[in-house]
Amino acid sequence: MDSVKIGICGLGTVGSGTFNVLQRNADVIGARARTPLQVVHVGARRDNPACDLGPTRVSRDIFDVARDPEVQILVELIGGTTVARELVEEAIRNHKHVVTANKALIAEFGNEIFALAREHGVAVRYEAAVAGGIPIIKALREGLAGNRIEWLAGIINGTGNFILTEMRDKGREFADVLAEAQALGYAEADPTFDVEGIDAAHKLVILASLAFGMPLQFASVYTEGITQLTPQDVDYAEELGYRIKHLGVAKQNGEGVELRVHPTLIPEQRLLANVNGVKNAVLVEGDAVGPTLYYGAGAGAEPTASAVVADLVDLARDISAGQANQVPCLGVAEEQIRDLPVVPMSEVKTPWYLRMVAEDRPGVLGRVATIFSEQGISIEALIQKAPAEGETRVPLIVLTNTASQGRVDAAVAAIESLDTITGEIARIRVEVLDG
Amino acid sequence: MDSVKIGICGLGTVGSGTFNVLQRNADVIGARARTPLQVVHVGARRDNPACDLGPTRVSRDIFDVARDPEVQILVELIGGTTVARELVEEAIRNHKHVVTANKALIAEFGNEIFALAREHGVAVRYEAAVAGGIPIIKALREGLAGNRIEWLAGIINGTGNFILTEMRDKGREFADVLAEAQALGYAEADPTFDVEGIDAAHKLVILASLAFGMPLQFASVYTEGITQLTPQDVDYAEELGYRIKHLGVAKQNGEGVELRVHPTLIPEQRLLANVNGVKNAVLVEGDAVGPTLYYGAGAGAEPTASAVVADLVDLARDISAGQANQVPCLGVAEEQIRDLPVVPMSEVKTPWYLRMVAEDRPGVLGRVATIFSEQGISIEALIQKAPAEGETRVPLIVLTNTASQGRVDAAVAAIESLDTITGEIARIRVEVLDG
Repeated sequence: MDSVKIGICGLGTVGSGTFNVLQRNADVIGARARTPLQVVHVGARRDNPACDLGPTRVSRDIFDVARDPEVQILVELIGGTTVARELVEEAIRNHKHVVTANKALIAEFGNEIFALAREHGVAVRYEAAVAGGIPIIKALREGLAGNRIEWLAGIINGTGNFILTEMRDKGREFADVLAEAQALGYAEADPTFDVEGIDAAHKLVILASLAFGMPLQFASVYTEGITQLTPQDVDYAEELGYRIKHLGVAKQNGEGVELRVHPTLIPEQRLLANVNGVKNAVLVEGDAVGPTLYYGAGAGAEPTASAVVADLVDLARDISAGQANQVPCLGVAEEQIRDLPVVPMSEVKTPWYLRMVAEDRPGVLGRVATIFSEQGISIEALIQKAPAEGETRVPLIVLTNTASQGRVDAAVAAIESLDTITGEIARIRVEVLDG
Repeated sequence: MDSVKIGICGLGTVGSGTFNVLQRNADVIGARARTPLQVVHVGARRDNPACDLGPTRVSRDIFDVARDPEVQILVELIGGTTVARELVEEAIRNHKHVVTANKALIAEFGNEIFALAREHGVAVRYEAAVAGGIPIIKALREGLAGNRIEWLAGIINGTGNFILTEMRDKGREFADVLAEAQALGYAEADPTFDVEGIDAAHKLVILASLAFGMPLQFASVYTEGITQLTPQDVDYAEELGYRIKHLGVAKQNGEGVELRVHPTLIPEQRLLANVNGVKNAVLVEGDAVGPTLYYGAGAGAEPTASAVVADLVDLARDISAGQANQVPCLGVAEEQIRDLPVVPMSEVKTPWYLRMVAEDRPGVLGRVATIFSEQGISIEALIQKAPAEGETRVPLIVLTNTASQGRVDAAVAAIESLDTITGEIARIRVEVLDG
């Protein structure tokens, strides 16, 4: 049988991993695809000692791959959103299917790219863009296709989860663990994308669009990183029976959707609370299936390659059957994609963890409780620690029932204005993740 | 656009669940499939008050559905392996695609059914046959297609997991919990299939064939149930840092495969060890992706319906593209399916948990240790409990390093023949589930 001809652009970690997996597992991959998958052209500015390209044609100009008449599927693994976008669009205009691992590209320019792909009758696949090797895109697009998805919540940034795991296991400070993660190569020299939640926001937007059949809305995601978390918060959460995880959450809420990335307290017995180190996991609640969870490596050369190759096998199966675009890019027929309003954060309701520093004297607690009550917020649990030797102020930790951010903002402002409260109140949302 | 026409045979729990999900979620399902999914014919001996069939055509003879020229996909939900097999084969001969939730049918007669389907150019899909609503078949067949699967291990019987969870949480006896599970409807009046591991063996065989590209070999699975487990074993396991789960395990081992279902000690921090109640989960180790885990409801009307509908959406996408058989039934091109020898249990190596009753006197422990040593088995941990008041015998718990069952059999026989050891030695395998 004729092989399916593949061009790979980018020969960094994921590019070389993909090339290597395609070579090493050529037998099982060919058997599953019912046709050999052949890399006929690699575009890369330089070779990578991690992979032996053998006689494969190599171009220093990646656009040569996009214009190579032999190439049927172009794999974009160069990253970034400028050249990568031009490359992908050039490939589509040349009637090539595209596979990419580029979450920023899909989250920010997916709507335009998918429209162009549709116009040219080709497919764009991006399993590797979210949660590395975990086949979560396929689960949402196909495996759960019978469900109305109610919500999903995921640990979708491995660097952040590594940092939180270390903070908890060893009682370390954020900055200290970050420096180690950088030394280990888990975090970039500029860690902003990971620790400020931007990377997670890219991935969340993709998951939400697949789950709810809506266009990609990267600009609308509320994004809060993990830089403000302290070892005390990790400890107090533990005392209350929770762990702190950095979650991406997407939820149908009346006529709108919540799209938010932030640190979150999760009950400690939940599986998500027990996903540690650089691993990723996504919990999805469907109306028919109930909760399902998907766990695995969220990054790394070969886990990401695993997802790229899965997309290639899907396309190869379709190409050899003479048809390659029956699964829409977002899993929903394009004409049925509908724009859903994003719920303003002030209206988003969750329970809350609040930590403040209060004078240890009669009446303070009562005043704080009254303010919550005035905002209609009920208190689920309260811990007042004993004052340290010679100290007149004590930490006061409050766990509230479900309350909108608007009401919590108002309560926090009122409490912070009390002269018995020092400094700012630390706030972290809670998700019960029932089911 | 023309709808895809579906016939459903069987209107029990899953049949009515499937009908209801197709009605309730018709809008999202149609948008995802790019075509409406229409149930045009239901075959059932009697109506089910759980679903309102409206104007849908109903036949009391299910074979009418298999012969209905309008039906494009027949959904077999009657269960059993005699009439169900005839029905499925009749549908295939009438050039209908088949979707089934019937694990026994696929595990025992899948090879013949898939061959017939191939001959007639139709697809057979069975996502619902393993782990209910969890899209694990799709993950193995498609999502992990780039990997050489090294092993998989799953909690794939919800009844068994409910019983083990209750035994652990409440220190209850097996028989006592089983009676409650029967009262709650989690266990059948005849619980043999669940508690003796036959149901899990059916599912394991299907997972193994997908993972390793081999024919279904139900007769070759080693199957051990949970009826012999005692609350003491659950407690001692806990003391050693383990939980007891009933696992199906399939592993590439040299030129062969291990296929086995049995109670297993798992380190308590593993996610699988924390899957409780009636939930299912499958852990899969691929050479590129590393470990991935899939968790969710393993049974129930709508979770199972979720999997059935996912298969229907896949087929509808293909049918409306004019092609419906590009993904082979076992995920591997039929001519490349290869029979792999099943490794005899005597050669299967795992660590072991052993519990015996020994006289509490000097020299006994030394004699036992010597026997292990003579068999080349090293001891990882040993607990000797204090004797109860007025008792001269004590429980002795041994955790071994990896050893073949053959050597453990020999050691156990030698130890049981000692006059300082009373009765039989309880034995449970251990899986470390690294990664």
